[in-house]
Amino acid sequence: MRALVFDGTTLALDPRRAEPTAAEGEALIRPIKVGICSTDLEICKGYMGFTGVLGHEFVGVVESINGPDTRRLVGKRVVGGINAVCLKCDMCRAGLTTHCRNRTVLGISGRDGCFADRFTLPAINLVPVPESIDNDAAVFAEPLAAALHAARQLHVEGKPYITVLGDGRLGLLCVQVMAQLNASVRLIGKHPDKMNLCTKWGIKHRHVSEIGRRADQDVVVDCTGSADGLDLALQLVRPRGKVLLKTTVAPETRLTDLSPIVINEIEVIGSRCGSIPDAIDALRRKQVDVASLISRRFRLDDGVKSMQTAKQPGVIKVLMEV
Amino acid sequence: MRALVFDGTTLALDPRRAEPTAAEGEALIRPIKVGICSTDLEICKGYMGFTGVLGHEFVGVVESINGPDTRRLVGKRVVGGINAVCLKCDMCRAGLTTHCRNRTVLGISGRDGCFADRFTLPAINLVPVPESIDNDAAVFAEPLAAALHAARQLHVEGKPYITVLGDGRLGLLCVQVMAQLNASVRLIGKHPDKMNLCTKWGIKHRHVSEIGRRADQDVVVDCTGSADGLDLALQLVRPRGKVLLKTTVAPETRLTDLSPIVINEIEVIGSRCGSIPDAIDALRRKQVDVASLISRRFRLDDGVKSMQTAKQPGVIKVLMEV
Repeated sequence: MRALVFDGTTLALDPRRAEPTAAEGEALIRPIKVGICSTDLEICKGYMGFTGVLGHEFVGVVESINGPDTRRLVGKRVVGGINAVCLKCDMCRAGLTTHCRNRTVLGISGRDGCFADRFTLPAINLVPVPESIDNDAAVFAEPLAAALHAARQLHVEGKPYITVLGDGRLGLLCVQVMAQLNASVRLIGKHPDKMNLCTKWGIKHRHVSEIGRRADQDVVVDCTGSADGLDLALQLVRPRGKVLLKTTVAPETRLTDLSPIVINEIEVIGSRCGSIPDAIDALRRKQVDVASLISRRFRLDDGVKSMQTAKQPGVIKVLMEV
Repeated sequence: MRALVFDGTTLALDPRRAEPTAAEGEALIRPIKVGICSTDLEICKGYMGFTGVLGHEFVGVVESINGPDTRRLVGKRVVGGINAVCLKCDMCRAGLTTHCRNRTVLGISGRDGCFADRFTLPAINLVPVPESIDNDAAVFAEPLAAALHAARQLHVEGKPYITVLGDGRLGLLCVQVMAQLNASVRLIGKHPDKMNLCTKWGIKHRHVSEIGRRADQDVVVDCTGSADGLDLALQLVRPRGKVLLKTTVAPETRLTDLSPIVINEIEVIGSRCGSIPDAIDALRRKQVDVASLISRRFRLDDGVKSMQTAKQPGVIKVLMEV
């Protein structure tokens, strides 16, 4: 089968990748559409030390299940959680399955991803997609779940000032979700074209060069995808405020000044995966505009070019048809 | 008067420093004993860009007050909060006076410190010391308040595993405070002599080389005073656990990998100053052993030597008599 593979140094389309085999309880899935995430780009810079088939954002069809199809998923259009978990470790038993000690993560850690003709995931990870949600929307389920999860981690009282940093793929999802809280929300970005979407949505936005560093935001959500995002967040957040950190980047050597965290007693809270059913629910109710985020469409055969395109400034979401 | 002064490059005893003048509402204080804190050592490496008289840990006698002595403090033995605040800004009005936008901080920011024959602080900062607390104990009020504050920032449920990283001045205070929570507490350090104090106190302790990196601690309190402390804390804390960050160091260039915060959804919480009355209360009730922390005693005239001594491994608290 075809698969977009990162071997540790090079990204290439492998036209003859071995077919995956579904382990017990796993589904074999044929992706219809897949999305490129900044994490995919970071992996190609060494993040997570991952090698194999890339990709974790998908909408696909279940071809088969190795085991009883108790949820009648075969033939269904599905999206899915990306963490394949053991359900036995202390984290799983505590209900924190996304933190399973023995997990593999689709296209990120220990498990081949979805940028291929077929891939596998545990059947329990899969969520059927209602007919009212088209493939262009469903493929956003995973990143939208991550954005919804960030909002869930906040306990909003009063009407807090929330700044979302970064006008990229995740930032534009996060700011839409945050704008539905009882809060004063703004996006800080760099790209006029991307920020224009905020005008369309009725969300305040400013260019990063136009804002002060007044340490007056109750919450700052770092979606910059850049190691510098935290520095800026620490300048914008008020004393005793919160920084939600969504950015994961390959480690780099840089001048680190974490003393503002201590001096201003800031809470820096990491935020990763969310609930796929919640995302499907938000898409079904059209609470979030994802269609406007699609910048370019490619076919899997142009996978390398797709990834290069996703890196370019001004480009938001790149989709591939498989 | 005499004062131990850092001028931005050199630390020296100035025998002819101009006497300070108490502004309205301020007290003129004659310190009896003062303590050296890691922050003082960091300032001499450039932290906070502070120049002037060092020192913020003291027990002293109020010589005079510029204004009405409503609390009859003149002649009394006192300790005090180190943040001189405006009571007018948004932070002060929100009750977060330690985060006053216009604050000066004794010997740390915009205000000469207490390593001198006399210094000033707002009278409202001062707390009388009961007779039952001797000077050797009272001089610990400020760092003990900081340790108590860290415990206050935790919401202990069940019986969590708490690791205190660092067997220095602050770590040995923090671990004593944490050991009074309903928690399983241990100290991780490097110096056998310091950790022996834990044996005396009945607190578990291990050498840093003897511990795993199993990401199983509910809370890790970083009191290492080293930029590497956070890295280790992020390896020890469990997914969705908390890291209390007490370490403030001058910024340095280093390999930074903050991705564990995101991947494991850790909360990193900065922790600074606490309540001086709470510390006095804990000292009065002898809840904490501070006497054992005193490693060396000097006179203010030997201030430079005192600071050099405080840097040495194995040395805990260095006191100076003024």
